[in-house]
Amino acid sequence: MVDVVIGGSKQGRRGYSLDEVAIAPHRRTRDASEVSTAWTVDAYKFDTPFIAAPMDSVVSPISAKTISNNGALAVLNLEGLWGRYDDPSLLLREIAQCSPDQATPLLQKLYSEAPVDLGLIKERIAQLKESGITVAVAVSPQGTAELAPVAAAAGAEIVVIRGTTVSAEHVSETGEPLNLKSYIHDLDVPVIVGGCATAQAALHLMRTGAAGVLVGFGGGSSHTTAEVLGVRVPMATAIADVAAARRDYLDESGGRYVHVIADGSMGTSGDIVKAFACGADAAMIGSVLSRATDAPGGGTHWGSEAWHEKLPRGERHAMNQVGTLDQVLNGPATRGDGTMNLVGALRKAMATTGYSDLKEFQRVEMIVTPA
Amino acid sequence: MVDVVIGGSKQGRRGYSLDEVAIAPHRRTRDASEVSTAWTVDAYKFDTPFIAAPMDSVVSPISAKTISNNGALAVLNLEGLWGRYDDPSLLLREIAQCSPDQATPLLQKLYSEAPVDLGLIKERIAQLKESGITVAVAVSPQGTAELAPVAAAAGAEIVVIRGTTVSAEHVSETGEPLNLKSYIHDLDVPVIVGGCATAQAALHLMRTGAAGVLVGFGGGSSHTTAEVLGVRVPMATAIADVAAARRDYLDESGGRYVHVIADGSMGTSGDIVKAFACGADAAMIGSVLSRATDAPGGGTHWGSEAWHEKLPRGERHAMNQVGTLDQVLNGPATRGDGTMNLVGALRKAMATTGYSDLKEFQRVEMIVTPA
Amino acid sequence: MVDVVIGGSKQGRRGYSLDEVAIAPHRRTRDASEVSTAWTVDAYKFDTPFIAAPMDSVVSPISAKTISNNGALAVLNLEGLWGRYDDPSLLLREIAQCSPDQATPLLQKLYSEAPVDLGLIKERIAQLKESGITVAVAVSPQGTAELAPVAAAAGAEIVVIRGTTVSAEHVSETGEPLNLKSYIHDLDVPVIVGGCATAQAALHLMRTGAAGVLVGFGGGSSHTTAEVLGVRVPMATAIADVAAARRDYLDESGGRYVHVIADGSMGTSGDIVKAFACGADAAMIGSVLSRATDAPGGGTHWGSEAWHEKLPRGERHAMNQVGTLDQVLNGPATRGDGTMNLVGALRKAMATTGYSDLKEFQRVEMIVTPA
Amino acid sequence: MVDVVIGGSKQGRRGYSLDEVAIAPHRRTRDASEVSTAWTVDAYKFDTPFIAAPMDSVVSPISAKTISNNGALAVLNLEGLWGRYDDPSLLLREIAQCSPDQATPLLQKLYSEAPVDLGLIKERIAQLKESGITVAVAVSPQGTAELAPVAAAAGAEIVVIRGTTVSAEHVSETGEPLNLKSYIHDLDVPVIVGGCATAQAALHLMRTGAAGVLVGFGGGSSHTTAEVLGVRVPMATAIADVAAARRDYLDESGGRYVHVIADGSMGTSGDIVKAFACGADAAMIGSVLSRATDAPGGGTHWGSEAWHEKLPRGERHAMNQVGTLDQVLNGPATRGDGTMNLVGALRKAMATTGYSDLKEFQRVEMIVTPA
Repeated sequence: MVDVVIGGSKQGRRGYSLDEVAIAPHRRTRDASEVSTAWTVDAYKFDTPFIAAPMDSVVSPISAKTISNNGALAVLNLEGLWGRYDDPSLLLREIAQCSPDQATPLLQKLYSEAPVDLGLIKERIAQLKESGITVAVAVSPQGTAELAPVAAAAGAEIVVIRGTTVSAEHVSETGEPLNLKSYIHDLDVPVIVGGCATAQAALHLMRTGAAGVLVGFGGGSSHTTAEVLGVRVPMATAIADVAAARRDYLDESGGRYVHVIADGSMGTSGDIVKAFACGADAAMIGSVLSRATDAPGGGTHWGSEAWHEKLPRGERHAMNQVGTLDQVLNGPATRGDGTMNLVGALRKAMATTGYSDLKEFQRVEMIVTPA
Repeated sequence: MVDVVIGGSKQGRRGYSLDEVAIAPHRRTRDASEVSTAWTVDAYKFDTPFIAAPMDSVVSPISAKTISNNGALAVLNLEGLWGRYDDPSLLLREIAQCSPDQATPLLQKLYSEAPVDLGLIKERIAQLKESGITVAVAVSPQGTAELAPVAAAAGAEIVVIRGTTVSAEHVSETGEPLNLKSYIHDLDVPVIVGGCATAQAALHLMRTGAAGVLVGFGGGSSHTTAEVLGVRVPMATAIADVAAARRDYLDESGGRYVHVIADGSMGTSGDIVKAFACGADAAMIGSVLSRATDAPGGGTHWGSEAWHEKLPRGERHAMNQVGTLDQVLNGPATRGDGTMNLVGALRKAMATTGYSDLKEFQRVEMIVTPA
Repeated sequence: MVDVVIGGSKQGRRGYSLDEVAIAPHRRTRDASEVSTAWTVDAYKFDTPFIAAPMDSVVSPISAKTISNNGALAVLNLEGLWGRYDDPSLLLREIAQCSPDQATPLLQKLYSEAPVDLGLIKERIAQLKESGITVAVAVSPQGTAELAPVAAAAGAEIVVIRGTTVSAEHVSETGEPLNLKSYIHDLDVPVIVGGCATAQAALHLMRTGAAGVLVGFGGGSSHTTAEVLGVRVPMATAIADVAAARRDYLDESGGRYVHVIADGSMGTSGDIVKAFACGADAAMIGSVLSRATDAPGGGTHWGSEAWHEKLPRGERHAMNQVGTLDQVLNGPATRGDGTMNLVGALRKAMATTGYSDLKEFQRVEMIVTPA
Repeated sequence: MVDVVIGGSKQGRRGYSLDEVAIAPHRRTRDASEVSTAWTVDAYKFDTPFIAAPMDSVVSPISAKTISNNGALAVLNLEGLWGRYDDPSLLLREIAQCSPDQATPLLQKLYSEAPVDLGLIKERIAQLKESGITVAVAVSPQGTAELAPVAAAAGAEIVVIRGTTVSAEHVSETGEPLNLKSYIHDLDVPVIVGGCATAQAALHLMRTGAAGVLVGFGGGSSHTTAEVLGVRVPMATAIADVAAARRDYLDESGGRYVHVIADGSMGTSGDIVKAFACGADAAMIGSVLSRATDAPGGGTHWGSEAWHEKLPRGERHAMNQVGTLDQVLNGPATRGDGTMNLVGALRKAMATTGYSDLKEFQRVEMIVTPA
């Protein structure tokens, strides 16, 4: 921990964003074809260590299938439009086409008018199951108690509990606090939980029995947590810190390896590569997938923070569409700007630095240099 | 104090702006409904620790009432248009509508043509009193001798002495220097005084008997003190330094707690949150309120520095209007950019980091990271 | 000296630009009317420590008079248009009006077609003398041998030898190197020489007998030395270093005080204030004066580097015109952006920090903070 | 090595780009005419230490002649259009004129449709030989085995093996890895190889028997390696590190001096000067030459990374044309922005700091300062 004096007795830790770090090639190189990007969490194996974020602009029952076909895991947000409306296609188009000024009010309206529908949730899970993919769904911390058991019973294979900050120690005097530990124990499926951003917060989440923790807070391209709440956690530092917590917990738990999943702040394949270099086991990606022509966002992107009724902490962003989900994930790329062939880029970066698997690649040498 | 060598034997202290710091969430969270943002200065209690700056674009007798209804304190500038003109409504409109090039000359003309009128001042105070709010007024250091006693006699409950730099030790060979200590002693109401920016300057102001000190100098969005005078004091460092002086003075005085009030450089709710995190007890805000549709500035914003006859150190800025004062202060927000629901954002930031009151929140962990 | 490792065994000193530093107000303030900005070099006394740079866009025989009337010193470039053409008025207009692309070729043509004319030089000096001002002229290092004695004989009272880098130790195998020491000894008038940027280079220049040294290299707004030569010397560090050399030389010489004159990189009154805070005794200013409506550049600005026949290291820049030379120097300002009332701004900055003369002001506290 | 903690146990080395460093003039200056920029590699002597990069936008058989006439070395890419097509003139024009969106697909098509043709390669080398210049050609690491011997046999005098990262230790389980050491031993001509970016990688390349190593990776103006792969190596640090490796290898080898050649990230003459100051013996330049009106790129610029079929890591960039190759290299410059008279600028920078040859100039003092 390197603390700097802000003033008086107030100190702050120097945190590095992914923009401020880079990979340094070294003395060895390797054939890109001999590199493995395989990732395994619990009993589930994936060719690609990417998780499509539970955002309505990215994951629909249909895009989930395409994403899975590309070797990645797609997570459907049960509290999104697909859990509230029978057929949200027209609503998605409305969101994509409305003017920037009207986008936040429209999101606030659409997500508050229709409540989450348990019947619809079961239907969605059945639909995902039918398509033959690993069924992963997300709920908010507030929605966990009601929705997670329903989802698991309906066949969800992986449950993601995702909020801007999820802590293992939520204080509430009026309501019942979310007891993550007992929830996760009771659910019979692996749980991924987050975001968190410090080693200590991550350690507490690991102790709840989670299979993976999401690292991030307000760094995503469509979030404005820094502007609204003043909360910002530079991702390179956050990932490296949580990776250190993973090692501590490995020792403390006598060998349970909790996956560190970078979530947000990765706008290009270069950013994704750096996240792995900092210690991530997998990357939850949103904006990069929303650039696909067949992403449900139709050229726009937003997260659940953007539809908060009283204090939205995100905006609907227009995204430059670059190619299909297939091309974005596995190429071929027709652009050289880090927005296409994300898997190929990760593979090439590993090859260029001589590493053959992701675990090894976490040891790659890094450079710190202004953005 | 961390000094760096600029060159030769010249050293400078490394100062951090609010842009360079951020809040780091930690292992605990809390319900936002269980957070208190209450602030008490002297006998006056407020639900909201915000003070509307004594600027004509922000506080009029009418907006003061609206701001107070939102739980905050509004300070009317006795030397502004309301202390010079019977009805400045048309002048405010003229300022809002004139071209950028003509704005400074127009301000110079309007504020110099009509002198401050003691009768008008008494009327304004009566008007504020009638509306049932805590009556707070501001004078410049130069105007203190003449205006402060009149204001106190007329019923002002809090007096703010505000200048770009106010020192406890003003040197003047020709005129009588402002003896802050005796003035503050003689006034029978609590006095808030500033700006200052260093621990030592703040300590001297605290010794004058002030109830609160304003921290800031040239950081406001409409000020240009850095361009004109070369004076710039990064707010995160300034607040943390003055907070340290507060603790020293608490010991020295045997327990008198002087409020540290961040003044300026806070353009979003995120900035405001960071100011509290650095040690502020309250925040004097201007530009964020001038974005309200019912702020007197009519979509523009300026401070008293901007109307100086020979050396203006500010400009009239056009501000994007975002919603009513009610919405700006307490929401609901229809934008996710940190310009609306300032109270809700502060509350949410405290909840996200697990703190229940402002004093505790001053201990929150911070991150230092390039803007 | 704080060196950082660039790589391998290569180290570099961390240098600070004026943008990275600022003045910090402290516990004392003072009436601006009780501040002295007087500056004395040799037998010449000035109310204002500003020297108008020997640039054709700034100093003509006519503007020199106006500048002097404002208490400053104006230096006419003997190798500029006024030393080459009988009446350059039309040429100045042509330069001001030609397109950006054509400006460099036009400057190259105009300054090479007509040689410097000794008769014309004597005439210019007589003209300046007649107007009753202190007669100061500039020559290049290359032109010194031929022009400086002529100028002194014709009545120049101060001679400035100014080049991008002037060293006391110029190596030349073919030509005769400029022996500054003997030239300065032989000239019977005070000589100001530069630019230099390091303590050691400055010390050598001080030993030549110069009355003042110019600090700067490629920092001016119209220079492109960094882009062309890779040479950049951040001014805050350069001034502070040379100020330290001044103190060393004061001891070494048994009391000869050589003036440190900041030259370039000062685009606003705030920058000028910071230069004094870093240790400057006077400031040579160009671009800020070229913004005057009665500056000869007619809304454009260029230096002698811009007209080099083979390797121009500057460009003609368009400058926003803000007011008359009188207003730019002594106000009143009708803008709040640091471009007007330079003297008033310096005076106010000194008053705000409680200092009464320039020598004292060199001790003011500074802050280091990103631009 | 100065390492900073990114987070947890992850450290990164602080690397400096050329933008962050600058040359500091010192106490001595020199006549520019008495400076030598001569460079010798193996038996080949050049007046100018510049190597035109093997990029189709820069080096054609015709531009190679012009570049050589200016004292520099031009390297033809044998795997570029000239090694694939009889007459690529129309194709070059098509590339220059197509829209930005279509550029990458067009490059992918043109470079994949026609294979490299051994007969054509021999013809090109004969053509270069005929024009009387030093014949230098480039191959990719992958193409080395097949093409390098053919080229050497056909009369190539210098062979450049250039890839984004070339290591002495390439791991391949399926194919035969490139054994650089035996290839270089078998080729009877001096070999320049790279890029590399760290001291250790460079040391291994030096041990292969190479006459020179290219320093750089993804820094060129047309590359996007940072965005795509997350790989970025700030050039100032990389050059200084590899220069340190050169010294180590000099000792280890008992006196073999391997040339350190900066490759990329040099967009102006100022950048080139800094590269030499950091320790480079020569500079391989691309974008600065592509700005010439007679460069084959016709106002556009691209590298071999840009035409990769699946993962392009570069783009075709539009370049502002500034003058002829003669003017760009040796002036006269008609612009003051560091794009013309590169040789003159290097010469002037050396003179300004008092150095007489490039080896000495590597000791020049440097400043570190934000870009």
